[in-house]
Amino acid sequence: MSHNSFGHLFRVTTFGESHGPAIGCVVDGCPPRIPLTETDIQHDLDRRRPGQSRYTTQRQEPDQVRILSGVFTDEKTGVQMTTGTPIGLLIENVDQRSKDYGEIRNKYRPGHADYTYDVKYGIRDYRGGGRSSARETAMRVAAGAVARKVVPGLVVRGALVQMGPHRIDRSRWDWDEIGRNPFFCPDAEAAAFFADYLDGIRKKGSSIGAVIEIVAEGVPPGLGAPIYGKLDADLAAALMSINAVKGVEIGAGFEAASLTGEENADEMRLGNDGKPLFLSNHAGGVVGGISTGQAVVARFAVKPTSSILQPRLSVDRFGAETDVVTKGRHDPCVGIRAVPVGEAMVACVIADHFLRHRGQVGETTPWPMGG
Amino acid sequence: MSHNSFGHLFRVTTFGESHGPAIGCVVDGCPPRIPLTETDIQHDLDRRRPGQSRYTTQRQEPDQVRILSGVFTDEKTGVQMTTGTPIGLLIENVDQRSKDYGEIRNKYRPGHADYTYDVKYGIRDYRGGGRSSARETAMRVAAGAVARKVVPGLVVRGALVQMGPHRIDRSRWDWDEIGRNPFFCPDAEAAAFFADYLDGIRKKGSSIGAVIEIVAEGVPPGLGAPIYGKLDADLAAALMSINAVKGVEIGAGFEAASLTGEENADEMRLGNDGKPLFLSNHAGGVVGGISTGQAVVARFAVKPTSSILQPRLSVDRFGAETDVVTKGRHDPCVGIRAVPVGEAMVACVIADHFLRHRGQVGETTPWPMGG
Amino acid sequence: MSHNSFGHLFRVTTFGESHGPAIGCVVDGCPPRIPLTETDIQHDLDRRRPGQSRYTTQRQEPDQVRILSGVFTDEKTGVQMTTGTPIGLLIENVDQRSKDYGEIRNKYRPGHADYTYDVKYGIRDYRGGGRSSARETAMRVAAGAVARKVVPGLVVRGALVQMGPHRIDRSRWDWDEIGRNPFFCPDAEAAAFFADYLDGIRKKGSSIGAVIEIVAEGVPPGLGAPIYGKLDADLAAALMSINAVKGVEIGAGFEAASLTGEENADEMRLGNDGKPLFLSNHAGGVVGGISTGQAVVARFAVKPTSSILQPRLSVDRFGAETDVVTKGRHDPCVGIRAVPVGEAMVACVIADHFLRHRGQVGETTPWPMGG
Amino acid sequence: MSHNSFGHLFRVTTFGESHGPAIGCVVDGCPPRIPLTETDIQHDLDRRRPGQSRYTTQRQEPDQVRILSGVFTDEKTGVQMTTGTPIGLLIENVDQRSKDYGEIRNKYRPGHADYTYDVKYGIRDYRGGGRSSARETAMRVAAGAVARKVVPGLVVRGALVQMGPHRIDRSRWDWDEIGRNPFFCPDAEAAAFFADYLDGIRKKGSSIGAVIEIVAEGVPPGLGAPIYGKLDADLAAALMSINAVKGVEIGAGFEAASLTGEENADEMRLGNDGKPLFLSNHAGGVVGGISTGQAVVARFAVKPTSSILQPRLSVDRFGAETDVVTKGRHDPCVGIRAVPVGEAMVACVIADHFLRHRGQVGETTPWPMGG
Repeated sequence: MSHNSFGHLFRVTTFGESHGPAIGCVVDGCPPRIPLTETDIQHDLDRRRPGQSRYTTQRQEPDQVRILSGVFTDEKTGVQMTTGTPIGLLIENVDQRSKDYGEIRNKYRPGHADYTYDVKYGIRDYRGGGRSSARETAMRVAAGAVARKVVPGLVVRGALVQMGPHRIDRSRWDWDEIGRNPFFCPDAEAAAFFADYLDGIRKKGSSIGAVIEIVAEGVPPGLGAPIYGKLDADLAAALMSINAVKGVEIGAGFEAASLTGEENADEMRLGNDGKPLFLSNHAGGVVGGISTGQAVVARFAVKPTSSILQPRLSVDRFGAETDVVTKGRHDPCVGIRAVPVGEAMVACVIADHFLRHRGQVGETTPWPMGG
Repeated sequence: MSHNSFGHLFRVTTFGESHGPAIGCVVDGCPPRIPLTETDIQHDLDRRRPGQSRYTTQRQEPDQVRILSGVFTDEKTGVQMTTGTPIGLLIENVDQRSKDYGEIRNKYRPGHADYTYDVKYGIRDYRGGGRSSARETAMRVAAGAVARKVVPGLVVRGALVQMGPHRIDRSRWDWDEIGRNPFFCPDAEAAAFFADYLDGIRKKGSSIGAVIEIVAEGVPPGLGAPIYGKLDADLAAALMSINAVKGVEIGAGFEAASLTGEENADEMRLGNDGKPLFLSNHAGGVVGGISTGQAVVARFAVKPTSSILQPRLSVDRFGAETDVVTKGRHDPCVGIRAVPVGEAMVACVIADHFLRHRGQVGETTPWPMGG
Repeated sequence: MSHNSFGHLFRVTTFGESHGPAIGCVVDGCPPRIPLTETDIQHDLDRRRPGQSRYTTQRQEPDQVRILSGVFTDEKTGVQMTTGTPIGLLIENVDQRSKDYGEIRNKYRPGHADYTYDVKYGIRDYRGGGRSSARETAMRVAAGAVARKVVPGLVVRGALVQMGPHRIDRSRWDWDEIGRNPFFCPDAEAAAFFADYLDGIRKKGSSIGAVIEIVAEGVPPGLGAPIYGKLDADLAAALMSINAVKGVEIGAGFEAASLTGEENADEMRLGNDGKPLFLSNHAGGVVGGISTGQAVVARFAVKPTSSILQPRLSVDRFGAETDVVTKGRHDPCVGIRAVPVGEAMVACVIADHFLRHRGQVGETTPWPMGG
Repeated sequence: MSHNSFGHLFRVTTFGESHGPAIGCVVDGCPPRIPLTETDIQHDLDRRRPGQSRYTTQRQEPDQVRILSGVFTDEKTGVQMTTGTPIGLLIENVDQRSKDYGEIRNKYRPGHADYTYDVKYGIRDYRGGGRSSARETAMRVAAGAVARKVVPGLVVRGALVQMGPHRIDRSRWDWDEIGRNPFFCPDAEAAAFFADYLDGIRKKGSSIGAVIEIVAEGVPPGLGAPIYGKLDADLAAALMSINAVKGVEIGAGFEAASLTGEENADEMRLGNDGKPLFLSNHAGGVVGGISTGQAVVARFAVKPTSSILQPRLSVDRFGAETDVVTKGRHDPCVGIRAVPVGEAMVACVIADHFLRHRGQVGETTPWPMGG
């Protein structure tokens, strides 16, 4: 992936800092004649927006998106559609609370990108995290809203499956539950537990990590490419590029290390539709870097935010030892709001590979071969 | 990453199938005037070569590499050096045992790329796995041998840290032990256990997964880039692109999900050299996508090979149900030989980011800032 | 080049249509700590702005640029500088005169992109040319203003050297003259002639082509790369990508076809600074795709705009024959305003290769070699 | 374009020096199931091969190509076809005549890349031109042979239309004539003249430039993309990247500068097939960066080779003044052998855009729109 872009045919470029005038992105390569309005994108943005419960930062970011280009309203139908030209999206920053940045202007918060930006660039916009702010992920969600429309029948959903050391009970998985609790948690009982658990974390001025699972259904078989253009390699990069992510796995993931070949191989039968029916999905929908037609399943681990109230040992940008306390309106579990971000990244990668596959191979499926 | 290439400035492209005439790669963008001989590359290739113990496939692949271009011997010094032009590398395939591929020519091995290649392309070289053969990884190792020379002081080492459900004891970690057992295992006691354990797996005609850890020391701070050009995002893609890999993590990885912000943040002091000294390395050497100067630590999970002797339910390429048995000379634990491959991929990614950083920012470090 | 982006390390992405809410661009990969203000960029934009003489379109486009990201004001110095993160630039569209597009909504103007956009995408924003409007070139100029600051000592200037069949007299070339006439013409006598000539063209409702020459001084030797990464190959693409450009040449260009080897080869002596001094510059500053240190000289041909008052035979988007007249405020010679655009493109390409070279080879020049 | 690669979906990477063991290329992204043999490629290579007449270098380069990967022979049909995986191509170097390079080992030939390679890299393989040798173009021709098969119905032909100051008479254009003279000249009378003319040049130990025209028929409308992904921008880069090329033009090219809007705009009628019929082709088949369905017409100027027998003033790599004479077996007009190279580059660019267009828009043409 490039500095601030990803994707080959469906290509997303973002810009903007937390406390600058605006953040934005350019979605290039989108197919033409796809109906697209600001409302479509706003719907996804609203799911990521902070301040919707006491479990996320209390910053108010209305995140009102404007489509600046790449769409046109057909006069006959009155439907606004993509034109195939680049889609420019913009969100003005409005809640740039004027405040004293004295503590972090010159001091490095352990676990933050403060030091690494300085050691790389020698300059950084420290206000609200600048370019490394989670605010950038709003543009990923916006781009993802476009991506979802590129692949017919694609449904990408995400869920929080672990908070701190506590995993959900997968036997209670209910997608409808996701919208009923502030954690995107598919297990109602776990959600109730997380409410108490996270209150405790928050009151201590601490923070905690989480694991998110993304499931993409309706992914046609054949997406991806051998070797370096593997669908799962691009998924891994896309998810690891989200702020605070420290691990990515596909299907059985790290659990696959403990399996035998017999256990791990997903046996195949023929379904009623004449297509392969897999009897399990340890592969997470990707084998040899190419989608099988099963659900693509990816998980990623989000570390706890380092913006905590407890003092930590540090150094400053002039090379002196110090300690630092991070005040402000922070998420006690940034993993929660990473759910729609993860969905968006998966959608973008799949959309890109959908177009890449169509480019190389065309629109007809060669399988099954004639006898 | 592109179909068969990765990297921006240090760019690797591979080609070749298991049973075609040869496999090869092109390393483009290597800096000039770096001493490089076939012996340098061969040393790394020999570490990956199969048939060196009873724990890897008994195929004999001498893997003799030829440098076809991109080097020149200075007449005065007699030293062969890179010229800055593309380095072409070639390994002729010699052990293409003529055999009956009847079983797998038309049948899909569950867990293999057989079906996905067919559903994508409608044609595939089924001999020995074709393009999806682990044989391709020899060229990654060759490219990695070049990459190691690009970054002054860089040392990249790998180790097998888990086989099946059995993890090594990290308190016994000894890098010297790596070369003394056939598992690249840094824990002598674990290695002894793995010998018996893997014999059992092998005799059953089964296979087992593993977890590999790669540690890169001497990585300068400041490599990587914000957002999509993150060093860890590129590491994730590079490692996930290795055959059979299902999960990647950096530093604390999935364990970070269970940590609190206080536990996870790596506190900083000043070292005697005036540079930041981190009191821990949960970050795995990368914060905000940019290297900190600590060791870069990555782990990846390798699934068990699906080439096992037990029959599995499957379908064939004409759309009929069948079952399939995979005979042949297979690795009972493909994770073992993935160790040098993982090292190579990490070296290539770091070399690429080293050049990219130098391109954008130059050769002087801005840190610390003058007061 | 990608759809709407170009450059590898210094990468420019633009978006926006003529009559949408705004046009914009993202400049990614710019080195940090370069002083940059909106005024710097505005200066170049004002040179391209239409409506400054009767020889360009009378549309009023104030083209007021806003920097949305990628800069930060150091509190100590008060100087706004680049941070190394993506620079977002935006120009709101203000002169979107409401009018009847009846004539061109469904009819294809011969010589315009009307038909090709429709046959490709099946939809297009026909208002004011939409994405194919020359308005997009404002963002090229803005990006070029940033690029000029990346390479120390770089000076890029352009001149109109031919209008219709009439070439300037190169013996009268005076760079100071460029700013004194509305044609960016370095030959005062020719400029006076062009004033009358173009009045005639304009009054006939016709249009005419032109040739533009760009000269870049201060280009360090060694920029470019062998084979496909040639500096002149990237210049050719960059200039050919400007609207209405039909030809590009470097140095002697097409004239080189008529030269003998003796005439064409630029002989070398040593200058007082110990660097090679070339006795001529047929090469246009680029040999083997790599800069020599001489001035880089490129020329490009701009066709006459097809937006003319005379009726032309055409077809419409429903597949019926028709004829079409293009009314509106059009440039009688679009080549004039292409001068600052050409400068910008050359500056961007050189900035990109400056960073790419530094990435691969570093900051010290190996020449001359020690005996 | 990257250092040694070009194309996005149909991507070509070459490697190799004139006097190293071999030259090669990797064609990545080729669609699967296209019949392809070494004979197909050899046919094009033989057209480029030197030593076929007294008008080209007398070096003997059999240029026997081997396909190392990316094809597979279907057992049922016995037809060798592409598999969609990277196609590795190799030509061993055989005529590496051992000789004294004393003259050019340390001296820079004016007009050659000798100096620029040294000032960039500080090292170069000076034998036979090394990486900057025209020998590299053999791999372009090989890749082009693959590209020709990607676009159904595509026919790409080239012709020498000017040698020195002498242009052919286009009214005598006969494609069949191309194969009957050693100049790829479509005008029999001009060819006869060129035979004498070039003999004179050759006997003087001099050299001369040329202009080549490439015509691609069967290019579907809609290929290309707005702004930076213009078909003609990529053509310009591809052709300018050929050794010794100094200018590129599309359609009317530089002549367009002298035309009025009325003259230049290609009027449209409807053909019997219901598709637009253009009454002229000043556009050269590309408008707004997108193909019109007309023949794509490109021309490029090739400078005279600087390898001439007459002594020229120069400097050496240690920074001393000298003069240099280039002996050896050189082409008196390198433009001749550039004809098949230009064809190949145009075919590669069109193949790439064919796949890119299919990726973004799919396989059905939206035109004409329903009323």
